[in-house]
Amino acid sequence: MAYLNDNYLKLKAGYLFPEISRRVKSFCDANPAAAQRLIRCGIGDVTEPLPPAAIAAMRRAVDELSARETFKGYGPEQGYEWLRAAVAQNDFRDRGCDVADDEIFVSDGTKCDTGNILEILGRKNKIAISDPVYPVYVDTNVMAGNTGEANAAGAYAKLVYLPCRPRNGFVPEPPRRQVDVIYLCSPNNPTGAAATRGQLDVWVKYALEHKALILFDAAYEAYISDPALPHSIYEIPGARECAIEFRSCSKTGGFTGVRCAFTVLPKSVRAASRTGELHPLHPLWLRRMTTKFNGVSCITQRGAAALYSPEGKTQVRGLIGHYLGNARVLREGAQKAGLKVFGGVNAPYLWVGTPKGVTSWQAFDRILNEANVVITPGSGFGSRGEGYFRISAFNSRANAEEVARRLQALKW
Amino acid sequence: MAYLNDNYLKLKAGYLFPEISRRVKSFCDANPAAAQRLIRCGIGDVTEPLPPAAIAAMRRAVDELSARETFKGYGPEQGYEWLRAAVAQNDFRDRGCDVADDEIFVSDGTKCDTGNILEILGRKNKIAISDPVYPVYVDTNVMAGNTGEANAAGAYAKLVYLPCRPRNGFVPEPPRRQVDVIYLCSPNNPTGAAATRGQLDVWVKYALEHKALILFDAAYEAYISDPALPHSIYEIPGARECAIEFRSCSKTGGFTGVRCAFTVLPKSVRAASRTGELHPLHPLWLRRMTTKFNGVSCITQRGAAALYSPEGKTQVRGLIGHYLGNARVLREGAQKAGLKVFGGVNAPYLWVGTPKGVTSWQAFDRILNEANVVITPGSGFGSRGEGYFRISAFNSRANAEEVARRLQALKW
Repeated sequence: MAYLNDNYLKLKAGYLFPEISRRVKSFCDANPAAAQRLIRCGIGDVTEPLPPAAIAAMRRAVDELSARETFKGYGPEQGYEWLRAAVAQNDFRDRGCDVADDEIFVSDGTKCDTGNILEILGRKNKIAISDPVYPVYVDTNVMAGNTGEANAAGAYAKLVYLPCRPRNGFVPEPPRRQVDVIYLCSPNNPTGAAATRGQLDVWVKYALEHKALILFDAAYEAYISDPALPHSIYEIPGARECAIEFRSCSKTGGFTGVRCAFTVLPKSVRAASRTGELHPLHPLWLRRMTTKFNGVSCITQRGAAALYSPEGKTQVRGLIGHYLGNARVLREGAQKAGLKVFGGVNAPYLWVGTPKGVTSWQAFDRILNEANVVITPGSGFGSRGEGYFRISAFNSRANAEEVARRLQALKW
Repeated sequence: MAYLNDNYLKLKAGYLFPEISRRVKSFCDANPAAAQRLIRCGIGDVTEPLPPAAIAAMRRAVDELSARETFKGYGPEQGYEWLRAAVAQNDFRDRGCDVADDEIFVSDGTKCDTGNILEILGRKNKIAISDPVYPVYVDTNVMAGNTGEANAAGAYAKLVYLPCRPRNGFVPEPPRRQVDVIYLCSPNNPTGAAATRGQLDVWVKYALEHKALILFDAAYEAYISDPALPHSIYEIPGARECAIEFRSCSKTGGFTGVRCAFTVLPKSVRAASRTGELHPLHPLWLRRMTTKFNGVSCITQRGAAALYSPEGKTQVRGLIGHYLGNARVLREGAQKAGLKVFGGVNAPYLWVGTPKGVTSWQAFDRILNEANVVITPGSGFGSRGEGYFRISAFNSRANAEEVARRLQALKW
């Protein structure tokens, strides 16, 4: 008899974004006129065309595939050397971080990588996540068998939830107890908070002292506008011994549809076997990627490399400036509407308190029905997300301005 | 303390193809002149340009990404509806197989899918694989913890190996004992054998009787030239209750560099929870894909859909005819060289017996050093692959002819 993975049966309801899609579709079907003026600020998906440098590079890549002499078949599973080198140089060594080319693993998404990394880790780890948190961290741990059952509030047994709230600036502090694997996301999805050097330093010290591993999701680092904030965990001394970093081209070059991300796994990061012997994780991840992955589309990799050309960099800065401009417009609009707003300065997300007595999903339904705007209910990110909603700044300027107006017109 | 996945420490040496790359690189570095005339028939990678229909569609897709009005961000994780519908109609319903659009899951590779599918299965399953076999099936089961340690011959405890040899035409028979999950690959990599309807019927009956699950890898189905052979497991009555099928655009459209494959998971396939209750696997795989995957590049999906257009189909047939023509040339050459040859008729692979007393890796080294041709040693596919080597027919016609000549010139 074939057996299934029982851990999947512990998962609660649908994954957040499919559930939002379902509600939006049902609203649009029932209200075709309102559907016409719908503005989506829910899922964090980019809206602007790709940078011209990436388009030009991908056109050339398609052309290469049309002739035998320039045709490309299987590439290295970890990514082409020219892309790994461009990433290591521009994103890390140019910022003073000691990262070698072969510590970069090119992949098709940070969502995939943060889930797949659990494959090379053991089942005895005590896992710490923020609350609120990007739901994928939780769900992939449930699937992997790292949790018990969920309670009525949706919190899973065995996970250690680290509360993020106004009083800690939505950046979690290390717990007093031992945890073995810690997810940190900065700039944060969903709260838009960015960790300071001091806050990351506390975490790296904790990890070194407790032989813990930090999974550092920096998919939004390019949105940091405060020059004092670190962009990479490797700006913190000691991080090369205890941290794996995840980056993405989704929110820099707008690659959500063409799929490119990367994981940085320093050769000095180690974890223990069952017998307590320390082994580097780099060879395990290399083995995982060469065995279970076939590399990113060569067209996409050409496009990603072009983001690191001089024109590409300028164009990416332009795109990010555009979305951060939207964030400012939305922030001001929400504040004028009398709402309490966090984030939106070093991140493309605003984290907005709901009016008193209004739950996250109630706010979602009100904003959908009355303002015809899709946001993301905070409770979808964990129990401490209740009482908030997330507004994504990924949009046209005209839409951002319109959403700002509609938020102000809404009577709670 | 962070713990690693100890199962990775059970893995033997490098994965086969990286090991071949290492030996070839070291030969080329030492023999620059011979390196000039090197012909690669090792890894099964295509060499011919993509079909013009796919190129045109991917050019249009890149153009779409350059304008706000036509820009595409995140697509559905399971693939665009237009691609799932084209696959289900053309590859299945047109052949009389009952497969719904939403039973197709578009992915970035069959290697990825056959590995990832283990995530939704339990750890109590007794796994059966052929010997010889595509190494990924074995390695991913080791990583997932479905095996014990390897013995000196490289065979893993707890796996059930099904011998493939001349006397069964290299198609395994069901074992007498209970197994829960069975990998079948037809047309086969590496042996080139294709299962008959009768042979698959025996397997489906076994699976239904033993409540077992068949993982059917049909990545090479387009190479079947004998009209009596089934292309899909769903041509066999009962397979919709017990089989998951894997297909790829890698060897049809030549998509090894642009990455597109798909998995067919009928809603009627079920597996047992720990308590013995049967659940459909479709919702688990849907959850896995929406949570841990972000979909295939939209450019690639446009290219894949074009393979199903009338011009695309003709061009794919042309490509496959080309590679099968190479297989015929290589087959005749190897036979004239006095070698015993299997496969190469319904598959792009030839499975060739080494001369008496010559091991697979000895044959690899001889053919590399003396003929400057890269093949794949049979023992890399399992202990019953010893005494054979695989020749890939993916090449230009001129190279195939040259390899046929060199094989004949080689004195053993």
